[in-house]
Amino acid sequence: MSGKRVVIAGMGFGGLRAAKVLAESDVELIMVDRNNYHLFQPLLYQVATAGLEQEAIAYPLRGLTRRWSGASFLLAEIGGVDLNEKYVMTDAGKVPYDYLVVAAGSRTNFFGMESVAAHAFDLKRLDQAEDLRNHILLMFEQAPREPDPKRRSALLTFVIVGGGPTGVEFAGALRELIVYVLSQDHPGISAAETRIVMVEAADSLLTAMPVELRQYAYRKLNSMGVEVMLESRVVGATAESVELHGGTIIDSHTLFWSAGVAAAELAGYLHGVELGASGRVVVQPDLTIMGHPDVFVVGDMACCFEQGAPLPMMAPVASQQGEYAGRTILAREQGRSLPPFHYRDKGSMATIGKSAAVAVTAGFKFRGYIAWLAWLLLHLYYLIGFRNRLVVMMNWTYAYWFQERQVRLITAKKRRAVTV
Amino acid sequence: MSGKRVVIAGMGFGGLRAAKVLAESDVELIMVDRNNYHLFQPLLYQVATAGLEQEAIAYPLRGLTRRWSGASFLLAEIGGVDLNEKYVMTDAGKVPYDYLVVAAGSRTNFFGMESVAAHAFDLKRLDQAEDLRNHILLMFEQAPREPDPKRRSALLTFVIVGGGPTGVEFAGALRELIVYVLSQDHPGISAAETRIVMVEAADSLLTAMPVELRQYAYRKLNSMGVEVMLESRVVGATAESVELHGGTIIDSHTLFWSAGVAAAELAGYLHGVELGASGRVVVQPDLTIMGHPDVFVVGDMACCFEQGAPLPMMAPVASQQGEYAGRTILAREQGRSLPPFHYRDKGSMATIGKSAAVAVTAGFKFRGYIAWLAWLLLHLYYLIGFRNRLVVMMNWTYAYWFQERQVRLITAKKRRAVTV
Repeated sequence: MSGKRVVIAGMGFGGLRAAKVLAESDVELIMVDRNNYHLFQPLLYQVATAGLEQEAIAYPLRGLTRRWSGASFLLAEIGGVDLNEKYVMTDAGKVPYDYLVVAAGSRTNFFGMESVAAHAFDLKRLDQAEDLRNHILLMFEQAPREPDPKRRSALLTFVIVGGGPTGVEFAGALRELIVYVLSQDHPGISAAETRIVMVEAADSLLTAMPVELRQYAYRKLNSMGVEVMLESRVVGATAESVELHGGTIIDSHTLFWSAGVAAAELAGYLHGVELGASGRVVVQPDLTIMGHPDVFVVGDMACCFEQGAPLPMMAPVASQQGEYAGRTILAREQGRSLPPFHYRDKGSMATIGKSAAVAVTAGFKFRGYIAWLAWLLLHLYYLIGFRNRLVVMMNWTYAYWFQERQVRLITAKKRRAVTV
Repeated sequence: MSGKRVVIAGMGFGGLRAAKVLAESDVELIMVDRNNYHLFQPLLYQVATAGLEQEAIAYPLRGLTRRWSGASFLLAEIGGVDLNEKYVMTDAGKVPYDYLVVAAGSRTNFFGMESVAAHAFDLKRLDQAEDLRNHILLMFEQAPREPDPKRRSALLTFVIVGGGPTGVEFAGALRELIVYVLSQDHPGISAAETRIVMVEAADSLLTAMPVELRQYAYRKLNSMGVEVMLESRVVGATAESVELHGGTIIDSHTLFWSAGVAAAELAGYLHGVELGASGRVVVQPDLTIMGHPDVFVVGDMACCFEQGAPLPMMAPVASQQGEYAGRTILAREQGRSLPPFHYRDKGSMATIGKSAAVAVTAGFKFRGYIAWLAWLLLHLYYLIGFRNRLVVMMNWTYAYWFQERQVRLITAKKRRAVTV
């Protein structure tokens, strides 16, 4: 061992990649996370739409430390970092570091709208996906026994805010869940009386994509039966309604929010550090904090400028930054240095429905079946763990052939207490 | 349709089998359950010991109604039955019936010991299995950072009450989880410092089994490292200790209770009906309630005497009774009658660990590998749903070859609320 200790705070895509780089070396590695698993967030929406069991997109972190000598894991909530004394404060005690990689990710940003925060579902954590699935399935259990037609209609109306990849993928998956599964499960409910309304503030969906792909996504969602409202904004919500800018009220018991993210709370606990837009930590070209060359910030938490704009908050950026942080630490220990971080944009993609996706890479644009197949394969590839890949592949194959989703379980936790 | 409506209250093994018989007929069938899935309870302990994802042992009931014309499902909590007006009271309204099959199963019986009820884990519901898994895994996260050796030891001590099949299977699976998985995951914890203590009031384990098999189970558990205390009783508990009759205190943060079951609460809501031991409903030879030939009670809720003793509360009894109730209803509609119910005892089995189980059938006794293999195959066979069988088989194969259990996830729900 070099004797140097590297602490990684947060085991999302950035933290995981940094850990993989460092695991092959002779530093002491301590991985800290509030969960004992790495979560494959891009597939959370499939858990929420009954397509996957939650366990399939989580990988136990001790499955990694078990194979890596010199690496350990600490299940803890991080409360802050003392940048001068060089330790991380956690609810399991102080963890001193020589190098620190801060990779705590992001949280949902409701832009101060408390009524929306109180009533909207968002997808950052595994339990949120399970809650949302339970809620959607419950709406279909409640609607048939609702005598008031207006209320029945509100139970079967689903509002999705944000036309980025998460919103689009969720909208498509929800529509397919309703058409192929729930309207078959409930003979009294026709897919035609259900509504999915997508509310997007910009003048198109998937604004990061080329214009043809945006239009394709719009047409495809429309033809599937999703009502897309562009240049519209949600300004408030109750448990049974959503209010748009301009005063329009949509009666709906389900509001899904994917219209904003901000850096995780931890960014605010780093005293004296400059924060950029969305509360992200402004980093140097080598991803360290100004004045603290031993502290790296990677992924959604990092505000890293390239060509005048901060890099987007997405998994490939986090992974590349995690890898860079790990390599830089190794290089420094060997007395070398690396050129500044540079993001290699390999493209992006979003799936809309069965055999329908959009993808762009190296200037090439794909849509339809070929993009959809590429999406499936890449997501399987990036998923962690052989067993998880098998389970996901099995579920996808099953859903493809049988048009059914067997994880349509309502697993609500509030049950009567056991009587003595 | 005959126009007759059959309501099935509870979709465990008894209700499910009755539904399958009636689904092939021309009655109107309404299945009521508080969950939207059938739960394969015999494998709950494998969810609790991180061997299976919870979704794999649940089957959505609407997957059945979808295929069965004339059958519908109602997600509701049943509050009682009006036997004279012939309707079931639920939180979704009154459900009138012509025939009623009451199959609400059982709940854990703590025999009035409130301190035990407050602190013990039991396994009846899916969320309880998840809670227990989370708790066990958390003990191993907390122990290494516990400075007090006495407390550390208590964190790593697991007390199991009841040496019946559930207790024995759970003890074996927990021991294997610790030896093969958790002590590898946590280099600071040796399997030798962990304790599993099984407390059984009788003078042997598996009292329903032949004596050789009881002895085999005892020897096997002992050799695996489980401390079996026979002729011992738990009389109280705190969050950190278990008290035995005689005053012995075992310091332990984990108490698992499988030492008693009683009929579900619903049995007590049937006014004027005679209850037997454990609150079970005393039934006639045709499984109906005295004076109410249109109301059948099957499974754990039914107190059905054969050869002077009530039949045991186990899945095969429930299934056969459910089938009998269904067939009797069909026969009556055709103006026929059936001979009284008779339980055909096909045997029983319990698995203790890898390649180790006991089984008895038709007077033949099996133990070891052959019994274990039979256990695996029969459980796969009785599991509902092709997809679930695949997932379970995959998990078992994976665990067998790789000695790992990937569902070792701590999915606790109490997380910080999202900030605006």
